[in-house]
Amino acid sequence: MFSKMLIANRGEIAVRIIRACKEMGIATVAVFSAADRDALHVSLADESVCIGPARVQDSYLNMPAILSAAVTTGAQAIHPGYGLLSENAKFAQLCEECHITFIGPDSGLIAKLGDKDEAKRTMRAAGVPVVPGSGLIDSDATALAAAKEIGYPLLVKARAGGGGRGIRLVNSAEELLPALHASAKEAEIAFGDGACYLEKYLNPVKHIEMQILCDNYDNVLCLGERECSIQRKHQKLLEESPAVCVTSQLRHNMMEAASKAAKAVHYRSLGTIEFLVDSDLSFYFMEMNTRLQVEHPVTEMVTGMDLVKWQIRVASGIQLPFAQKDVRLRGHAIECRINAEDPENGFVPSCGKINLLHIPGGPWVRFDTALYQDYTVPPFYDSLLGKLIVYAQTREEAIRKMQAALAELVIEGVSNTAELQMDILSDPSFLDGSYHTDFMEKREKLC
Amino acid sequence: MFSKMLIANRGEIAVRIIRACKEMGIATVAVFSAADRDALHVSLADESVCIGPARVQDSYLNMPAILSAAVTTGAQAIHPGYGLLSENAKFAQLCEECHITFIGPDSGLIAKLGDKDEAKRTMRAAGVPVVPGSGLIDSDATALAAAKEIGYPLLVKARAGGGGRGIRLVNSAEELLPALHASAKEAEIAFGDGACYLEKYLNPVKHIEMQILCDNYDNVLCLGERECSIQRKHQKLLEESPAVCVTSQLRHNMMEAASKAAKAVHYRSLGTIEFLVDSDLSFYFMEMNTRLQVEHPVTEMVTGMDLVKWQIRVASGIQLPFAQKDVRLRGHAIECRINAEDPENGFVPSCGKINLLHIPGGPWVRFDTALYQDYTVPPFYDSLLGKLIVYAQTREEAIRKMQAALAELVIEGVSNTAELQMDILSDPSFLDGSYHTDFMEKREKLC
Repeated sequence: MFSKMLIANRGEIAVRIIRACKEMGIATVAVFSAADRDALHVSLADESVCIGPARVQDSYLNMPAILSAAVTTGAQAIHPGYGLLSENAKFAQLCEECHITFIGPDSGLIAKLGDKDEAKRTMRAAGVPVVPGSGLIDSDATALAAAKEIGYPLLVKARAGGGGRGIRLVNSAEELLPALHASAKEAEIAFGDGACYLEKYLNPVKHIEMQILCDNYDNVLCLGERECSIQRKHQKLLEESPAVCVTSQLRHNMMEAASKAAKAVHYRSLGTIEFLVDSDLSFYFMEMNTRLQVEHPVTEMVTGMDLVKWQIRVASGIQLPFAQKDVRLRGHAIECRINAEDPENGFVPSCGKINLLHIPGGPWVRFDTALYQDYTVPPFYDSLLGKLIVYAQTREEAIRKMQAALAELVIEGVSNTAELQMDILSDPSFLDGSYHTDFMEKREKLC
Repeated sequence: MFSKMLIANRGEIAVRIIRACKEMGIATVAVFSAADRDALHVSLADESVCIGPARVQDSYLNMPAILSAAVTTGAQAIHPGYGLLSENAKFAQLCEECHITFIGPDSGLIAKLGDKDEAKRTMRAAGVPVVPGSGLIDSDATALAAAKEIGYPLLVKARAGGGGRGIRLVNSAEELLPALHASAKEAEIAFGDGACYLEKYLNPVKHIEMQILCDNYDNVLCLGERECSIQRKHQKLLEESPAVCVTSQLRHNMMEAASKAAKAVHYRSLGTIEFLVDSDLSFYFMEMNTRLQVEHPVTEMVTGMDLVKWQIRVASGIQLPFAQKDVRLRGHAIECRINAEDPENGFVPSCGKINLLHIPGGPWVRFDTALYQDYTVPPFYDSLLGKLIVYAQTREEAIRKMQAALAELVIEGVSNTAELQMDILSDPSFLDGSYHTDFMEKREKLC
């Protein structure tokens, strides 16, 4: 096992990873930007290194600074968390070249699965159902021809897309080319790669993903699904496991498909296979995320497995000591993301000092956060303040527990989405589990 | 189900019960002393009533004030928590007379099991193994004769004893009568009942208790054991489940005995049967507690059952919807009590303002507390600041998780036992699970 690890991230996920390391006896190195000197992850880590100014490009995306911090402190491994450099094949490759273990799959796998067009072709070839769509578009003519075959409405998507960027809905042939050009430009700016493809637009549809865990010896475990359809502008707001709509037969089939997908690429590490589930319960591979997900805690609660620890263990070369038949999914877990955004005011980001903080507690209530009372939320980073996670034996009890926990949560000083989450929990389509990815859009139209 | 409940307690347990009620849709009434106006349980409850001055005798033990608060607010039930009025048969009887449900067994059962001499006779008659001992002592001559038969060393115990009061160790005939008279006097002052009996002193011995849950229809569930041998002056400091020394066969036998004990008295509600386990793994009934225990969370973690909710459900007349075969004990849980005491200075109680509070988090870390930053711990009540509870798949992992959580916990402003707990966790006899009830005494002799 590693004796020292650098955590190349900030916020709640850096805290989460540092805690896992401490329990595993691994010394921790935090990195931080000049704006994060007072951040919780810095005070919890055994050592810390400033890697640059506030802007992520200059600090948390600053590969040379992070690698030199790792080398200087003698860290044997780097955990990238999620976002930032977590799916950056170049960074993983640099780690490999420095003989530092990147906690994740190797750079080749990241590159292969990060190219969403190639990933789909690979999965299609492996017999995993994939949303009907085009290859990469090389001209307006190809686009129009491919769109005619797929049919409208359809989505334009960027090969390098992520976080909702580079995606556009197209309802008719007239809208196609403007949308394609806009997506290409957006992706070029955001990812340095403007390549786009077209995909059948399924609507209503559910976003349901499968968590997998693979060791370096081709052992693949599937740890059940997460229902992530409650999204706003392709950003997940609330996740739960299990999904109401997933019957045991569908779960079995989706788990089989997820395992097939992992095996097709000889996947290693923790990963997530995102599927779209149509109203007739057909499901389609959408993409594979080669990192720890924000919403991993719901899977932890229903499996009883600490995913961060397992991710670290398999990265160190440990063989999984149990098989698929040993995985038991029990009870129901829900996660609500508490973002520093003002839902009453167009979800404009909020920042500032947390004047009062009260974190709810009690059995099976977990709040993954880097907040503390009197902490000042800086304006430079993503808006996640914390993730409120509850677990109970039934979905109904989990919902009531989440309602009670949200009612108890106090975060004064920064606008946040706690009240919005409370509203979501009482929505009839949430309560009966029938919601789709258009849940938030429908709600906002009603308001 | 009840629509409104009064919680006749304070501190972490009042908070715990209020949270359970909120999840169950039960409105809550807090009661508080004049010293507790700023207490967390008061701000979390839907309503609150001041029941008297700071002294517990004038407030939290003030039966007329509590009952009138219940009647005035329309509470249909009273949860007594632990300590205070929780095992007071008279209070339970007054609740019955006011047609308010006392969350616990009926007053007759409380009286019957609260009389430790009668409880033992009942259990002996039911075929539950009981520590060899005398009946109630009515004269010095009876005492000397009974002691001779039992043999030295032995314990003098008060019929009404609790919290370590009225107990004395006697090593020889010369020490017997002074100890008996001192215990009788102490018990007379503490409980208004000076009756005492003698009991064989088992040493080394383990204190292992069985959690039971019974409904009003003679259904009895046994929810496994808690190892509570780490005590100081008969006050538990650390509890865990399962117990290292308990083999499956012993667990089976102790669960059978616990069920037999519960059935012998037609027990209702949540209860705990305390056993002493000798070095040859013989076990003996010691006493039965007719209330929620401080250490109930370790059982919650290994069973996945919310004991407070179940206690309320069975009190409302709900029949247990599952049987003993449905109870599964999984993983390992540990609880460390964090007391406002200074272990470096004879465990003298501490109080004052909490200048800085950081509560550890992450998966399967729970801190049951009523603390908040800037709260002032009053000097009038028991010293429990909070209970740190962890859960993991193995004991080894749970120990490491507890070490990491204790290292992360920050409570500035009040001396406390967090560091002592850290020391306990690294003690060889804790690590191998071989510890007995003399663990703390042995440690203190070494220092």
